[in-house]
Amino acid sequence: MEILNDLVGYKDLKIFQNTDWFSFSLDSILLPNFVTLNKNIKLIMDLGCGNAPIPLILSTKTKAKIIGVELQKDSYELARKSVEYNHLEDQINLLHLDMKQLTNYYPSDSIDVITCNPPYFKYLETSQLNDDIHKVIARHEKMITLEEIVSLSKYLLKNNGVLAMVHRTDRLIEIIQLFEKYGLAIKKLRFIYPKVGAESNMILIEGRKNGKVGLKVLPPLYVHYDDGQYTKEVLEMFE
Amino acid sequence: MEILNDLVGYKDLKIFQNTDWFSFSLDSILLPNFVTLNKNIKLIMDLGCGNAPIPLILSTKTKAKIIGVELQKDSYELARKSVEYNHLEDQINLLHLDMKQLTNYYPSDSIDVITCNPPYFKYLETSQLNDDIHKVIARHEKMITLEEIVSLSKYLLKNNGVLAMVHRTDRLIEIIQLFEKYGLAIKKLRFIYPKVGAESNMILIEGRKNGKVGLKVLPPLYVHYDDGQYTKEVLEMFE
Repeated sequence: MEILNDLVGYKDLKIFQNTDWFSFSLDSILLPNFVTLNKNIKLIMDLGCGNAPIPLILSTKTKAKIIGVELQKDSYELARKSVEYNHLEDQINLLHLDMKQLTNYYPSDSIDVITCNPPYFKYLETSQLNDDIHKVIARHEKMITLEEIVSLSKYLLKNNGVLAMVHRTDRLIEIIQLFEKYGLAIKKLRFIYPKVGAESNMILIEGRKNGKVGLKVLPPLYVHYDDGQYTKEVLEMFE
Repeated sequence: MEILNDLVGYKDLKIFQNTDWFSFSLDSILLPNFVTLNKNIKLIMDLGCGNAPIPLILSTKTKAKIIGVELQKDSYELARKSVEYNHLEDQINLLHLDMKQLTNYYPSDSIDVITCNPPYFKYLETSQLNDDIHKVIARHEKMITLEEIVSLSKYLLKNNGVLAMVHRTDRLIEIIQLFEKYGLAIKKLRFIYPKVGAESNMILIEGRKNGKVGLKVLPPLYVHYDDGQYTKEVLEMFE
């Protein structure tokens, strides 16, 4: 079912979602609040933007142009409707495209900042046969792998450009190795914990193309209090 | 000046220190409280044990034999005095040796657990000329590099044996790359923060030789409250 939601807390932004598929989640709110932005940034690209929660939130934080790339037609259409509904056509542009095709559309060294909330799980032919294809593509590396995304980002980013990603903590080592392999020096890491006393389940990570060594591990981010309520920091992202 | 200190909180353990050189620090208390121990462990080695705070604390947690290896004569002598003072000669054995020589004394695949609080800083010929040589060797990679320690650990450890290390957060990426290079799968990571809201300055990391992929990032460890007092968790390690 297609519905129009508030994009909680972000001015008057609203977002179209289809409750049958893959709704945007907290991850998509954390990432645009994590990525390093400054006034010199001209062009941001969100790889696999879904129904565009990240571009919509970024539009409240920067005047840079934002390009959202989405393979799935239905998600792309939702994203387009949201951009129009919020009158953001001048700032957010959408491409209905397999991101692997981007090298045919963009020269290397052309983007300042890339954000990506990628599929979290490795794709196994034998698994997930019962799932809706929209969910499989959004959650599993069926159409593109983590390494392909990092490699593509290295190609697209300007020198000193930034790739910011949200991912599962259990893939941290692999992510670090891939960032380093493709010359994206890891500058900023933040661990997300569901609550105090629990192990981290998600990470926010940022690498800079040909950047200098110099890692910062930011204070931990807790999502919930013991009673299940969102923490103050998370609620502030909504407000 | 040589003094006899309480090894705070550890039963009645006492430790000899020389206040002119390098006193053991909080790092040496955090590491033996982090490393994974179990009843099957027969032999633990602490590389660069200094005046042996880590072997002394480990002796309260395991019945395994513990070998402390220390290059610097004066630190080794302090360690020896502490072991004797505490009547731990049956459990803790000390080697006055450059750890690079260990491959001449031990076969490969012979140690269950290795702990190491290594020198934190890269050694530059041009720096630290004014420092006491004891401090230079304990703090700078003059006598051994991080890569040499990881490589040596891979040699010494049994299959599925564990290397646990405390180090500075700003060298995390390099450490992860070296552990992976030498087949030590990173299983456990804990970030230490000086206080709530600050960036992490230290890490605890554990790798398992030829272990399976499967990283856990433990809850953060805060050292101080805002008023400068040690946190409850740190104080509990002292008690």
